Amino acid sequence: MGEKYTATAPPAEGVLETAIYVDDLDAAAVFYGEVLGFEQVIASEGLFVFFRCGDTIILIFNPEETKKQPFAPPARQIPGHGTIGAGHICFRATGEKFDFWRARLVAHNIGIEAEITWDNGARSVYFRDPAGNSLEFAEPRLWGYGEGDTAA
Amino acid sequence: MGEKYTATAPPAEGVLETAIYVDDLDAAAVFYGEVLGFEQVIASEGLFVFFRCGDTIILIFNPEETKKQPFAPPARQIPGHGTIGAGHICFRATGEKFDFWRARLVAHNIGIEAEITWDNGARSVYFRDPAGNSLEFAEPRLWGYGEGDTAA
Repeated sequence: MGEKYTATAPPAEGVLETAIYVDDLDAAAVFYGEVLGFEQVIASEGLFVFFRCGDTIILIFNPEETKKQPFAPPARQIPGHGTIGAGHICFRATGEKFDFWRARLVAHNIGIEAEITWDNGARSVYFRDPAGNSLEFAEPRLWGYGEGDTAA
Repeated sequence: MGEKYTATAPPAEGVLETAIYVDDLDAAAVFYGEVLGFEQVIASEGLFVFFRCGDTIILIFNPEETKKQPFAPPARQIPGHGTIGAGHICFRATGEKFDFWRARLVAHNIGIEAEITWDNGARSVYFRDPAGNSLEFAEPRLWGYGEGDTAA
């Protein structure tokens, strides 16, 4: 193997974007924007709606369009992707904020599908978006992270 | 609407976990662990392999198992999920680190499917994992973030 193969990689910086797929973008826009309170960044009718969640952008796509390659004229260089079935994203929620989000789900009549307190004491609450994707709020200490954005 | 509906949500803290699905966990373990150099956190034969990527855990699942509900006896409270088709995750890579990752992909003979320089000058490079998921390295300024983990 050449030198390039053995060069030590820099530490992974993190996730800039992650994608999920829905059958109803309007319902997703209401759910992520109004129930979860995320800031909408940009939307394209029938194609996508993107939200900011801390340091990561949540890309919500209509997979019937994005799986075409290219999937839209203005974005024609972008490789196609798209899934069917329930994806999963877990959002950070620390301490009192975890309690806030759990209460907000209940107040919005969002069904709580499961609640787990893990062996290390971290709490998780599971629910679904309108498309059936499995969403979760969990305390970052589940994976050894502190409240901030830095690994503990 | 009651008070709970109008309570201001705290700012979204970020994404703690995001999931993708593969048809070959062993191939994924090599790709994400050795090519991308992510730290493996935990694995369960035939079920999942998880990696740490900065402040986020990348959950890589066998969807044939995780879409069962419950999907594994030790995790029987966890709601089922699982997709087919190509998902998408974009990893942060800033400045010289972007150059490093692009070179590393080439050195490992990973096909570069597309390269884009966006209107704001941020660069993206697209490739695929062995399961066909669409992966990307992009400079965080694409979405107005600085090099660190804090929104600009």
